[in-house]
Amino acid sequence: MTIKIIAVIGAGDAEGELLSTAEEVGRLIAQNGAVMVCGGLGGVMEAAARGAKSLGGLTLGILPGLDKNDANPYIDVPVTTGMGDMRNAVIVRTADVLIAVGGAYGTLSEIALALKTGKTVIGINTWDIKGTIMAESAEEAVNKALASLKL
Amino acid sequence: MTIKIIAVIGAGDAEGELLSTAEEVGRLIAQNGAVMVCGGLGGVMEAAARGAKSLGGLTLGILPGLDKNDANPYIDVPVTTGMGDMRNAVIVRTADVLIAVGGAYGTLSEIALALKTGKTVIGINTWDIKGTIMAESAEEAVNKALASLKL
Amino acid sequence: MTIKIIAVIGAGDAEGELLSTAEEVGRLIAQNGAVMVCGGLGGVMEAAARGAKSLGGLTLGILPGLDKNDANPYIDVPVTTGMGDMRNAVIVRTADVLIAVGGAYGTLSEIALALKTGKTVIGINTWDIKGTIMAESAEEAVNKALASLKL
Amino acid sequence: MTIKIIAVIGAGDAEGELLSTAEEVGRLIAQNGAVMVCGGLGGVMEAAARGAKSLGGLTLGILPGLDKNDANPYIDVPVTTGMGDMRNAVIVRTADVLIAVGGAYGTLSEIALALKTGKTVIGINTWDIKGTIMAESAEEAVNKALASLKL
Repeated sequence: MTIKIIAVIGAGDAEGELLSTAEEVGRLIAQNGAVMVCGGLGGVMEAAARGAKSLGGLTLGILPGLDKNDANPYIDVPVTTGMGDMRNAVIVRTADVLIAVGGAYGTLSEIALALKTGKTVIGINTWDIKGTIMAESAEEAVNKALASLKL
Repeated sequence: MTIKIIAVIGAGDAEGELLSTAEEVGRLIAQNGAVMVCGGLGGVMEAAARGAKSLGGLTLGILPGLDKNDANPYIDVPVTTGMGDMRNAVIVRTADVLIAVGGAYGTLSEIALALKTGKTVIGINTWDIKGTIMAESAEEAVNKALASLKL
Repeated sequence: MTIKIIAVIGAGDAEGELLSTAEEVGRLIAQNGAVMVCGGLGGVMEAAARGAKSLGGLTLGILPGLDKNDANPYIDVPVTTGMGDMRNAVIVRTADVLIAVGGAYGTLSEIALALKTGKTVIGINTWDIKGTIMAESAEEAVNKALASLKL
Repeated sequence: MTIKIIAVIGAGDAEGELLSTAEEVGRLIAQNGAVMVCGGLGGVMEAAARGAKSLGGLTLGILPGLDKNDANPYIDVPVTTGMGDMRNAVIVRTADVLIAVGGAYGTLSEIALALKTGKTVIGINTWDIKGTIMAESAEEAVNKALASLKL
């Protein structure tokens, strides 16, 4: 299977520049033909999904609850896990590489689970955890994410 | 969210008529504009995905393992849960309605979980569990599934 | 590890004879030095836990919710999974052998998952699923469960 | 339910002082009548379980795999989740309060999930994550953990 899946992780209540960065990350993911997976809710997740949809990309939302109406309007495929934050592990496992944009404790748990299993995590303005590859912009983050998939 | 998600559940080692039925179910799901979700592996799952893709439908595979290469070639979006059979609950939760085509114990667990939460299960040549709505053909099954979504 | 773990599965709203049977099953599990695991709630689960505790047995409740106060008063160790019915798979995986006493759809999902993975399921007055070993009494059920562990 | 459950989290390959600290934490948990829950494997998990058992405490191991023989010899009740690292969320949810002793990425994911849901995390020589309450010794850690339960 050659499809590439890139996760965008970040806070559901992010604001300002984080949102425009996440949207740009989403756009670039779609532009590069990858599927965008996220937690399906608001904030960074919604911005990334909006960006991906703006270029016709495919978006997957792995939701904590049981109601697909919880998904933001830019999610093509809502997966209603009913697992709460435990679904973070499903996002991490489904992604080939992860891009963290800002983020609070939930994002931190995803970064940790990803690094635990040896997945590449690119971080923009996020937790400074050893092993995360930092980027200054959406473009740099997506480029680094794509590069990691070619190894 | 108006997208409809229909699960096709059944054995990974099904043969013969069950496969052609599952493929026809997949085709009809796609023809009706719904997303087809399944367990992502072979047998009934692969036949249904092949059917859906033959008409350009979108297919979601919720896999038991961690490797998306386990997905059959007709899965657009593989979700690698790493949860083993426990992922059956994610399939059930993600689906608006389920169509069982044949099936062994795994399918039975899905039928049970779905009925437990009040979801409609249409069955073709499958476990005779009280609460399941039986159908004789792929067409009848998909029609009944779609009808349940309009209630 | 030589500890034996026997699951008692059945409906949370069971009544009458099913409860006295479940309580006797719990007693016999404790008498034989095994740990009793169940879903931690009422009905058959509570009766089995009460039986096990009456003889000083150890009881493990694997709960669907996040609040350990949901556990019945006879549970020594509550595991709050927050996974809803998905936690049925954890009960099945944790048990060496399962005894079903009556039961509705949730129990059926557990029977199916257990049989799928080759675990022995003893049934009293429960779903007649091929592969389940039927028993007429608590004593017969526990004896058959214990016998299966010595193979 | 008045039983208190304290998690001890930390690396499976910890060495030296971390192990003696974890063992002392386990002892103090048992001495205070609480149940000790951990991931059930080696390193910090085994040391904490050994400490708890040395004073007759009850130990619960929530394992990533399906084989209860993976549990260290000091685990009374092994829960075989088969969920891999995703089981970290079950540990967090089951615990009333968590004590992190050292730890790598897996521990970090648990700290993050716990803080996300507002649970108290006491840390000894572990990740410096905002919200974690640091302690210098096993005694200080357990005292702080117990104090948090009385609030």
